[in-house]
Amino acid sequence: MSKNKNRRGRINPEDKRLKGKSIKTQGENSMKSSKTKEIKKETLRVCTMGGLGEIGKNMYVFEYEEDIIIVDMGFKFPDNDMLGVDYIIPDVSYLEERKDRIKAIFITHGHEDHIGGIPYILPKVSAPIYAAKLTIGLIEAKLDEFNLLKGAGLHVIDPEKDKIKVGKFEVEWARVTHSIPDAVAVIVGTPIGKTVFTGDFKFDHSPVDNKNIDVGKLARLGDEGVLLLMSDSTGAESPGYSASESSITKNINRIITESKGRIIIASFSSQINRIQMVIDSAKESGRKLAFSGRSLLRNVEISVRLGYLKIPADLIIKIEDVNKYPDNRVCIMSTGSQGEAMSALSRMASGDHKNVKIKKGDTVLFSSSPIPGNESSIVTVIDDLFRIGAEVVYEGRGESTHHVSGHPGTEELKMMLNFTRPKYFMPVHGEMHHLVHHKEIAEEVGLPEESIFVMDNGDVLEITKNEAKLDGKVPSGIVLVDGLGIGDVGEIVLRDRKAMSTEGIFVVICTVDRKTGKLLSSPDIISRGFIYMRENEKLVNNTRNEVRNIIEGAASGGPQNWTNAKVKIRDKVQDYLYQNTQRRPMVIPVVIEV
Amino acid sequence: MSKNKNRRGRINPEDKRLKGKSIKTQGENSMKSSKTKEIKKETLRVCTMGGLGEIGKNMYVFEYEEDIIIVDMGFKFPDNDMLGVDYIIPDVSYLEERKDRIKAIFITHGHEDHIGGIPYILPKVSAPIYAAKLTIGLIEAKLDEFNLLKGAGLHVIDPEKDKIKVGKFEVEWARVTHSIPDAVAVIVGTPIGKTVFTGDFKFDHSPVDNKNIDVGKLARLGDEGVLLLMSDSTGAESPGYSASESSITKNINRIITESKGRIIIASFSSQINRIQMVIDSAKESGRKLAFSGRSLLRNVEISVRLGYLKIPADLIIKIEDVNKYPDNRVCIMSTGSQGEAMSALSRMASGDHKNVKIKKGDTVLFSSSPIPGNESSIVTVIDDLFRIGAEVVYEGRGESTHHVSGHPGTEELKMMLNFTRPKYFMPVHGEMHHLVHHKEIAEEVGLPEESIFVMDNGDVLEITKNEAKLDGKVPSGIVLVDGLGIGDVGEIVLRDRKAMSTEGIFVVICTVDRKTGKLLSSPDIISRGFIYMRENEKLVNNTRNEVRNIIEGAASGGPQNWTNAKVKIRDKVQDYLYQNTQRRPMVIPVVIEV
Repeated sequence: MSKNKNRRGRINPEDKRLKGKSIKTQGENSMKSSKTKEIKKETLRVCTMGGLGEIGKNMYVFEYEEDIIIVDMGFKFPDNDMLGVDYIIPDVSYLEERKDRIKAIFITHGHEDHIGGIPYILPKVSAPIYAAKLTIGLIEAKLDEFNLLKGAGLHVIDPEKDKIKVGKFEVEWARVTHSIPDAVAVIVGTPIGKTVFTGDFKFDHSPVDNKNIDVGKLARLGDEGVLLLMSDSTGAESPGYSASESSITKNINRIITESKGRIIIASFSSQINRIQMVIDSAKESGRKLAFSGRSLLRNVEISVRLGYLKIPADLIIKIEDVNKYPDNRVCIMSTGSQGEAMSALSRMASGDHKNVKIKKGDTVLFSSSPIPGNESSIVTVIDDLFRIGAEVVYEGRGESTHHVSGHPGTEELKMMLNFTRPKYFMPVHGEMHHLVHHKEIAEEVGLPEESIFVMDNGDVLEITKNEAKLDGKVPSGIVLVDGLGIGDVGEIVLRDRKAMSTEGIFVVICTVDRKTGKLLSSPDIISRGFIYMRENEKLVNNTRNEVRNIIEGAASGGPQNWTNAKVKIRDKVQDYLYQNTQRRPMVIPVVIEV
Repeated sequence: MSKNKNRRGRINPEDKRLKGKSIKTQGENSMKSSKTKEIKKETLRVCTMGGLGEIGKNMYVFEYEEDIIIVDMGFKFPDNDMLGVDYIIPDVSYLEERKDRIKAIFITHGHEDHIGGIPYILPKVSAPIYAAKLTIGLIEAKLDEFNLLKGAGLHVIDPEKDKIKVGKFEVEWARVTHSIPDAVAVIVGTPIGKTVFTGDFKFDHSPVDNKNIDVGKLARLGDEGVLLLMSDSTGAESPGYSASESSITKNINRIITESKGRIIIASFSSQINRIQMVIDSAKESGRKLAFSGRSLLRNVEISVRLGYLKIPADLIIKIEDVNKYPDNRVCIMSTGSQGEAMSALSRMASGDHKNVKIKKGDTVLFSSSPIPGNESSIVTVIDDLFRIGAEVVYEGRGESTHHVSGHPGTEELKMMLNFTRPKYFMPVHGEMHHLVHHKEIAEEVGLPEESIFVMDNGDVLEITKNEAKLDGKVPSGIVLVDGLGIGDVGEIVLRDRKAMSTEGIFVVICTVDRKTGKLLSSPDIISRGFIYMRENEKLVNNTRNEVRNIIEGAASGGPQNWTNAKVKIRDKVQDYLYQNTQRRPMVIPVVIEV
């Protein structure tokens, strides 16, 4: 090993990462867009609000003359440097200013990076939402949780038959296959041509739910002429084809059948088809099945209710009852495949799960692959399970046979390009390197470079009958969600959190006589996250003396404004502490006049 | 995507991860080991201080009767939850208590996870250090930096010929191949048999420096009988053989020769052989070569001085001078292959490098693979480079042809087991899952399960002529290095840092009259990392009133002990803030009596 690990910890005065992100906070005016700009005739404008240069918070805006529609409204989980933040949503100030022109919202499928932003953004841009049945079911549950269900216009569409007119747009759908049922491509028709927006997809020719990707419609659209294709880039670096979801059925089945003890399966709670697979295998092997994890239980409930999961009678038991059955009659499906700290599986691994105590003989199967950034958390869980003596089966040890990706490989991307044969092409859903490689794939199938638009969030693509070109930017910053606050955490709060997280704080409180400016008692020092105070009395006493001298120096002239003294205290104390510890806690001088 | 990301951010009261780590702090008594325990005759005790259940801070202690020797003394980079910590070193209190019995320290090779702990630990266990030439050179530089060189007994050994006696031990070496020159296996002889400690290795049959792994000696040791094998487990999940370092020469050469503009190569600064490859290719393609990055420059200097790098005259230019040459005459080698925030490559990607401004036409090659946990930082750099228009070549897009691992694949592990044919086997260097799989590999080549010891840090393996068994534990916690402090950051400091990092702090200062207990002014509130105070006046005012009521209630009885009031303030304020924001800043009540 020669590990040059990223020193995330230290504050980096030159770190532009946070700065580059343009965090929008409450009350702050975002970059004013040219609202008054004349509405262009016979022009399609595609504004990207999220999902470019990143995996997450997908949101795309289509404008044709005075009409606006939105496709997808996702959130994203924060990066490591966004301490304490819960979610990130797109800055929609551009839309808020054009609220009355928004005709509808279309959602491709029920994953959080496509629906997670709805409860936060819908109140600002209220418009009816159209999606397939399961997707609407998941959105409904979400809005209900936020008490936003009343008055929300949710519309279930049938991707095979429906076609609706909204303003100058005519929208239809094509069923696609993905790792959640009811995923659709949205086809946005305008008087100058159609856009095929694939959403997340793959070409799964033997989907578990037998609902095939509608290649017929995609091919027909290609024959009729597609103006613009916006296609999923997540898999642009995976060569070849992604395997069918059903290709792992046998393997999952085998491990459930052959395990001698209990079997615990961790997967994404949104992989409804995977859950069906486990249900079927558990039934077949004569095991009872219990679910553990809130999101899993909720998704199972919704999917059963809407007919997306078929559960045989007497199969399901409560997690509280697993210990009433012999080990080889028990199958548990749980959340936590990403090593999430408080998830069901993490609690099992650390011995904190109320009902499931892992023991020798248990088999834990990760039916998932690590999302980049989660590797170390996952390894912690895997190692804890190994320590207890469980058998652990996971990717990384050779080829994975218990998970497949929901996204298309390079050859499938070519297939989509060849089916639709678009005039213009915009790779979406992906980090910059995915988008760049998707562009190269498009060039390989014959699209000229000038017809391909690799864009960043906020870029606007303007298409007329004759040409397509980038046309400036719309605000596309991010809004941070933390607890109840939407947009009340900004750069300063984050910077402070970061500073305190690496070096702690050091508060110096001086109580002075309002009239004489003299110290009324020895300066108080409160420190957290810096150093054990009790073992460093000398350091604290010296600092106190330093502060006393500054205050007394300042006070020699009697009552005064303490701003200068405070700056002096901060600088002096910071220097002194750094010299003695090589750490820079955040020094906060407080002067209280009594 | 269905991302259930680890909510690192939130404080998890049940999170046992930190607790489990047993952080040792200054002044704290570590678990007392049975120092007075009788020294066992004709018994080899192997105490593991670091390197088991983790990648990093390798350190192993061998005891035979009254003599102690140490093999390796590494450090580790902190996990993400160890906010602000620089390095982690093993807790060596067990050795401090047996200082006079320590005869020597043996180092296998010059990577930080094998030498990084020396400057921190050597002063506590002073003993002579033995290693091969380059390794000693790197240790020397390190000790010099810490002003510890004077008096340190550094001894260069010749792995082919040397054999030394230290107490009852007889130590010899076998050259191995790895990603740094001069890596050796340490063979620890005792009256009851020999231990082969491989260190990091691979079977590279065409090493760049032509120094082959000493299979002859390993085989001879096997013939003579090996008591214990301790072998590198890092690659225990990589099927087959790792490719030879020289297998990528052609690919590196091609990319340097064929790139039309500048070529920038990022790699680990310790990969001396890789550096030689780049030197040779740059020469061949008629390019000048510049180095950027402090650790790279230092390692090049040491390696040239000791004869491990051969640099042709007129090849090297200063990084300040790269712009004086035509683009196709420039090659730059830099640090930052792991996306480290302040590294040369990160600065180039963010436009902050003084001398190198990336532009269209530049090619950036990552001659490295991501260390788990660094993926997102690396992608940030890659995407920034793509945005500027550079061509970026990296693993992850199909097979890597510009980097090979320095660790053995499963078949090489079998080979090592078959050469040495040990009586007992302890897999080392690896996370728990690596160790478990290495055990399975050993079983595949025929070792009985009861002869294999999968251990955790602190476990002691006791071997006599007749048997081997685990014999209790020695202290094996971790010591945190932060700035100048070694072991002065402990669990409380880390917990505070974590709390502040996710929710901020909220300091409430009440100045009261010592005699009457009455408030002398309105309570002061200082908050950082919580919320924008200016935009939340109501919240602040309400909190202030809440506090005022508590103080006034408490003061009704005149002067008093403020402990209860402080607890009450903390609880009340915490509740109030949580109800209104769903965040829990660290509330610190301060009462100042005047």
